[in-house]
Amino acid sequence: MLKKTIAVFFGGQSLEHDVSILTGLQVINALDSRKYDILPVYIDRDGTWYHGKELTERKNYNLSKGMKRRMKRVILPSGTKFNDRPFLKTIPNLFFVKSERIYFDVALPAFHGTKGEDGCIQGLFEFSGIPYCGPRVLSSPVLRNKSFAKEIFKSIGIPVLSGITIRRPDIGEVVDIKKLLKDTKIKFPVCVKPCNLGSSVGVSKAKDNKELYTALLDVFRIDNQALIEPFVENLVEYNIAVTKALDGKVRTSVIERPITQGEMLDFKNKYLGDGAKKGGAKKMAGTTSEGMASTVREINPKSLDKEQKKLITESAKKVFESVHICGTPRIDFYCNGKTGKIWMNEINTIPGSFAYYLWEASNPKVSFTELLDGLIEEACVENLKCNMSLDLVKFGASIFPNR
Amino acid sequence: MLKKTIAVFFGGQSLEHDVSILTGLQVINALDSRKYDILPVYIDRDGTWYHGKELTERKNYNLSKGMKRRMKRVILPSGTKFNDRPFLKTIPNLFFVKSERIYFDVALPAFHGTKGEDGCIQGLFEFSGIPYCGPRVLSSPVLRNKSFAKEIFKSIGIPVLSGITIRRPDIGEVVDIKKLLKDTKIKFPVCVKPCNLGSSVGVSKAKDNKELYTALLDVFRIDNQALIEPFVENLVEYNIAVTKALDGKVRTSVIERPITQGEMLDFKNKYLGDGAKKGGAKKMAGTTSEGMASTVREINPKSLDKEQKKLITESAKKVFESVHICGTPRIDFYCNGKTGKIWMNEINTIPGSFAYYLWEASNPKVSFTELLDGLIEEACVENLKCNMSLDLVKFGASIFPNR
Repeated sequence: MLKKTIAVFFGGQSLEHDVSILTGLQVINALDSRKYDILPVYIDRDGTWYHGKELTERKNYNLSKGMKRRMKRVILPSGTKFNDRPFLKTIPNLFFVKSERIYFDVALPAFHGTKGEDGCIQGLFEFSGIPYCGPRVLSSPVLRNKSFAKEIFKSIGIPVLSGITIRRPDIGEVVDIKKLLKDTKIKFPVCVKPCNLGSSVGVSKAKDNKELYTALLDVFRIDNQALIEPFVENLVEYNIAVTKALDGKVRTSVIERPITQGEMLDFKNKYLGDGAKKGGAKKMAGTTSEGMASTVREINPKSLDKEQKKLITESAKKVFESVHICGTPRIDFYCNGKTGKIWMNEINTIPGSFAYYLWEASNPKVSFTELLDGLIEEACVENLKCNMSLDLVKFGASIFPNR
Repeated sequence: MLKKTIAVFFGGQSLEHDVSILTGLQVINALDSRKYDILPVYIDRDGTWYHGKELTERKNYNLSKGMKRRMKRVILPSGTKFNDRPFLKTIPNLFFVKSERIYFDVALPAFHGTKGEDGCIQGLFEFSGIPYCGPRVLSSPVLRNKSFAKEIFKSIGIPVLSGITIRRPDIGEVVDIKKLLKDTKIKFPVCVKPCNLGSSVGVSKAKDNKELYTALLDVFRIDNQALIEPFVENLVEYNIAVTKALDGKVRTSVIERPITQGEMLDFKNKYLGDGAKKGGAKKMAGTTSEGMASTVREINPKSLDKEQKKLITESAKKVFESVHICGTPRIDFYCNGKTGKIWMNEINTIPGSFAYYLWEASNPKVSFTELLDGLIEEACVENLKCNMSLDLVKFGASIFPNR
């Protein structure tokens, strides 16, 4: 069997740059080296692409200037009709050196956040007809946006919190928050979130108008849309992963309850695994931070009864089937621990660590390696579907002569 | 004043390839040559990009093989950090010739349909930080999808027809339409549409189950989602364009009523202007086909009363403000001519001819040249906003040492 070359893309121009490095390295480690050759592609914070063996070693991050100089800079030549296999091109450092082609078969984006999870790089790959793993262009942007996602969830009958969306005023306009809020009725306390960012970045609680104004101004520094939701008392979170990449059928993972310190699962807590030392729950990874994989969590949480489990599982399946997602999104739910009421919160279209720890804990167990096999297979099938539609374009009628 | 170079992209891998050529040539004609240098980029049906003077002449289409050989093939080097201005690179035909850079300032995609209007090329530009005109990555895919768009419209209180979405079975699965429809209640007659294609391609009416099955199979040849809607009796269509590119405020154009032959405005009717010879209404363009600009239409239709006009105008504004669109979308409405009931049908995020004829007929009149000035300005402002967010990425905290 011919080995496929998998180009693993990570890093990127996102606040979640470092988390993406962790996910990228986990993916590279888990890919079956008997089946695949691995082509690591690191995207720097400034947008430059690098390729080199150094990228697979965690200890090399943050990459030093010297290291970057020694590595190969690469580009994807968009606008090339790739006959057989797509390729990257090296950018020679010296004038007399010729650019080389580095061929690959499937792109595997391991990004979180802006440009990597919001449909941008997906658009780039789909435009060039390159098979790529994970969420599609169609659903990536809309599900990344918390306000649009809420409408989609609601429309298919899934319980969600009410929400008010506030747009950032345009450049030059005065940010008059009072005016922005004038037609809305708000019952405090509320939770304020950026609509387009993940990882709980910029999320805060507001008890009154003054705190709300501050929270909105904070959001508008990093996002152009803010979502105001009722604050959920006695908050318990539950997460579940969904995929159809394993065998073509929609399958759900076990449910997890991430253990949090305080009211909000903040960024530090989520990714630096600080809670790990304090919490008493099962820790699934080593002591060094492994992104989402090292968060403290309870698998198959005892606090959920049969009905609640069913609601979470069925809602997750329903959303997955209704929108064209692909990949292995992690779907997050809110619960009021006292009343037991559950709401769908959001879909992480490319979750930290690809939520592999949920699949590993599932029954039957799915290893990260098997999960990646499935995602690569799915990328090829999706690309085939796109190509079928393109045949119609090639042989379609024309309104100009001489076809 | 330094002239800006505008790269006008057209053609593309879409069923609406030829219509996009018409729009592209109209844009090139209308751009103010005192302010801009024009860089025409044609994307062939097979995905190859060409650049050359020949592209601006309508008589050269379909491009002959010889002509293509003489033109420059170009690519966009995705993964390049463009310091000042983005550039395309030429692909030399001969080994000893060096690749050249062709600099530009703003990308102006004049595509319709797949890959050009659905967020793919938008993703490509946004990923590379290139200012681009028209709809954003966030809203392009979701609004192009008739089923998702319906949910968004409904959520903001705009009247829409009810709808049932049917997904195409996966490759290998048997297309058992009876099974697909088993949980749905359908009241005939219905209208069946592909969810992701524009220009009325693949739209048909079904009076009974048998016709519905045929219609669905037809849709599944060209799209993976079909939308079933109640058939609107006494159908009259109304269109309106919206933009905030003129002066930063949301503005609407005049309303038009496209004149159609028979029950459906089919592809031929819409783009080849066949109706032009038969209809008695005002024709706004020459006798040769000019795409949407040459459709027979009634401007400020008499059949609309004040209330209906208000509903159309306000709904169009509301949608535009609620989703982050940009550009100059044309929003299409259905009306039952007898009952007067109106529903929002769809948003064409990049409408044929950029709907310039609606702006030219508006009061105050907006010329196509002015409209394009606004779209270019808007592209630069949107890019500035993206860059502001990127500053946070560049200087953000890191979980790795040595930053």
